[in-house]
Amino acid sequence: MKSIEQNVPVSFTYNIHFTSGLFEHDNALFSDTVTKASAEVARKVLFVIDAGVSQHHPDLKNQIKSYAKSHADAFQAVNEIQVIPGGEAVKNDPTIIDQLHEAINAANLDRHSYVAAIGGGAVLDAVGYAAGTAHRGIRLIRIPTTVLAQNDAGIGVKNGVNAFGKKNFLGTFAPPFAVLNDFSFLNTLDQRDWRSGISEAVKVALLKDADFFEFLEDKATALDHRAPEAMHHLIYRCAELHLEHIATSGDPFEMGSSRPLDFGHWSAHKLEQITDYELRHGEAVAIGLALDCIYSQVDGLLSEEACQRVLTMLRNAGYKLFIPELEHKIDAPENPESIFHGLEEFREHLGGELTIMLLEEIGTGREVHEVDYDVYREAISELKAFEEQRAQV
Amino acid sequence: MKSIEQNVPVSFTYNIHFTSGLFEHDNALFSDTVTKASAEVARKVLFVIDAGVSQHHPDLKNQIKSYAKSHADAFQAVNEIQVIPGGEAVKNDPTIIDQLHEAINAANLDRHSYVAAIGGGAVLDAVGYAAGTAHRGIRLIRIPTTVLAQNDAGIGVKNGVNAFGKKNFLGTFAPPFAVLNDFSFLNTLDQRDWRSGISEAVKVALLKDADFFEFLEDKATALDHRAPEAMHHLIYRCAELHLEHIATSGDPFEMGSSRPLDFGHWSAHKLEQITDYELRHGEAVAIGLALDCIYSQVDGLLSEEACQRVLTMLRNAGYKLFIPELEHKIDAPENPESIFHGLEEFREHLGGELTIMLLEEIGTGREVHEVDYDVYREAISELKAFEEQRAQV
Repeated sequence: MKSIEQNVPVSFTYNIHFTSGLFEHDNALFSDTVTKASAEVARKVLFVIDAGVSQHHPDLKNQIKSYAKSHADAFQAVNEIQVIPGGEAVKNDPTIIDQLHEAINAANLDRHSYVAAIGGGAVLDAVGYAAGTAHRGIRLIRIPTTVLAQNDAGIGVKNGVNAFGKKNFLGTFAPPFAVLNDFSFLNTLDQRDWRSGISEAVKVALLKDADFFEFLEDKATALDHRAPEAMHHLIYRCAELHLEHIATSGDPFEMGSSRPLDFGHWSAHKLEQITDYELRHGEAVAIGLALDCIYSQVDGLLSEEACQRVLTMLRNAGYKLFIPELEHKIDAPENPESIFHGLEEFREHLGGELTIMLLEEIGTGREVHEVDYDVYREAISELKAFEEQRAQV
Repeated sequence: MKSIEQNVPVSFTYNIHFTSGLFEHDNALFSDTVTKASAEVARKVLFVIDAGVSQHHPDLKNQIKSYAKSHADAFQAVNEIQVIPGGEAVKNDPTIIDQLHEAINAANLDRHSYVAAIGGGAVLDAVGYAAGTAHRGIRLIRIPTTVLAQNDAGIGVKNGVNAFGKKNFLGTFAPPFAVLNDFSFLNTLDQRDWRSGISEAVKVALLKDADFFEFLEDKATALDHRAPEAMHHLIYRCAELHLEHIATSGDPFEMGSSRPLDFGHWSAHKLEQITDYELRHGEAVAIGLALDCIYSQVDGLLSEEACQRVLTMLRNAGYKLFIPELEHKIDAPENPESIFHGLEEFREHLGGELTIMLLEEIGTGREVHEVDYDVYREAISELKAFEEQRAQV
């Protein structure tokens, strides 16, 4: 009998909105978002808040309840508002997913109901996994509260939690129903979290938009000094470039072997792990970018001038670009404590063939399938020298 | 700031193959399936078998191992072959999912590896959920072993397990990598399992293909007597119609409120539940179809002649079309023991608006948004009379 070839086209549409004071009474964005999709039916919303956000905004729960009360025609806030831990902890604790599933069940949510997640990237990832697996996917409204979540982690099509000591071992591809970026949450971020999202913007600028990189160069110090307009533009343009990439890459659910946006990430992931997540993702990415830019330059791909511009920009934004872990077991790539082991893990993750993004010029990347450890060792030395020189200034 | 509208098109492609003796040495289908996708990399396959299948085919494990040995250039069978319970039990036991995730982790499977699931619909659903959530989706090869799984449950884009007493509370949309329908597994099915898949074929025929219904009418008795060619054609055409529906419905991931293929299913789901799953899905669907055909006729939508053809076909295929549970609490629709409570559950599941498929003529359905309990009560009486008349023959 002849085989049947099945082709299933699916199209996901969602909007990313930008606002301030999302739960102020006269801000219609949230209620408009839920009413728009379903005209006649009862709309239930389960709110889940990052404990870190709740701590910095002790009035948020009451504000949401009061907002729900004054928009009772638009939606109903069900059950108690859930508060769950923030940061990597939430992704390491399987009982949180059970707790969220229980709350979803207790509130009788269905596929036309909403879960609204307010928090950093880790909380959005965990809540997204719980919502994405209940009834094969309850509508998820992401309300990212950090720079990194607003311009990167919170706007894409993935979720995940850790298991068996492996990052995002459990997860699905599940585009959100909507993303509501509220800039007012950024005001209470500590300096490390404020800075942490900048490096992902540098990454996409380097790969896709030289003008945006010039903007970041120009504003590097201002960003470090928390200039709000510069940060809002950074978030907007970074989100735009990320979204464009997801929509047009041809492989949004990553079925192939290429991961073009993982520039600088093979070492970043490894550094986070070696430092036991003491280093934040954005901080690790800054180091990873610096390292891969120097490698690109030593390898003859990138001009020395362009390389210096990247290093200087990252330094001006306040990033520390060298940590001793870069040199650990540098001559034993097979040792899990060696940065080079990250290359092997990356290769495995991609299904056997290594694909690494390097930089050709500012605004243009180039994929390679093999790298030279000796050139990387030289790049690490140069990075160390760059930081030592800075310390002396 | 202007909102960003994101549109993510994703396209899933998979083939449904038909064969006999899948793991016989000279059958190249399985090894071709895994080699086709990834030319150069190591291909790992984790096999998971339904205990019911393993019991009827005690040599299957050895056959797979031997097949893997003689196709070592194509793939590597990792770890021990997993054997898990079959039937609804597997979907009710959360430890099975943990066990499968552990096996996937222990074997270091990645997104380019394979999980091959051999079994009935419930096993395919559970293994699909475990594979679909590990690393955001490991390639799933479904090898359905029942009629229902080969023509319906095993060829679509969903998976799921039960939780909180709710069917498929946990699950995702995750198209398989491939479906390999091996007809030789059908030989060992008991009569109820053999028959159980026929009603889903009747359903799609009634909605989409009058010629196919005529074939089923013609072969009803032969099917009950296990004529293999008739069954193979039934499976092929039913699979083809299902797949066509999924591909062209415009809503393969069921984001809207319409579920056109749920004809006869509101009562079927409820009857399965009321009988504590003593009634199999296909048996319940036969009753649900008979009931909704009579309703369509009493309501003036369907001709009496067409209605009788459907009832006679189902009877000739060996289905019992009346069970006493149809009359339980028939005057108390709000009672969870009443069949009518299934309508309310169906409405909730669809997000608030009821949409029920009825029959206009053989080959053509019609969606309605409200129904009349009194007409249903009359339909139930007629169904009872039809079965009593049959008992007297």
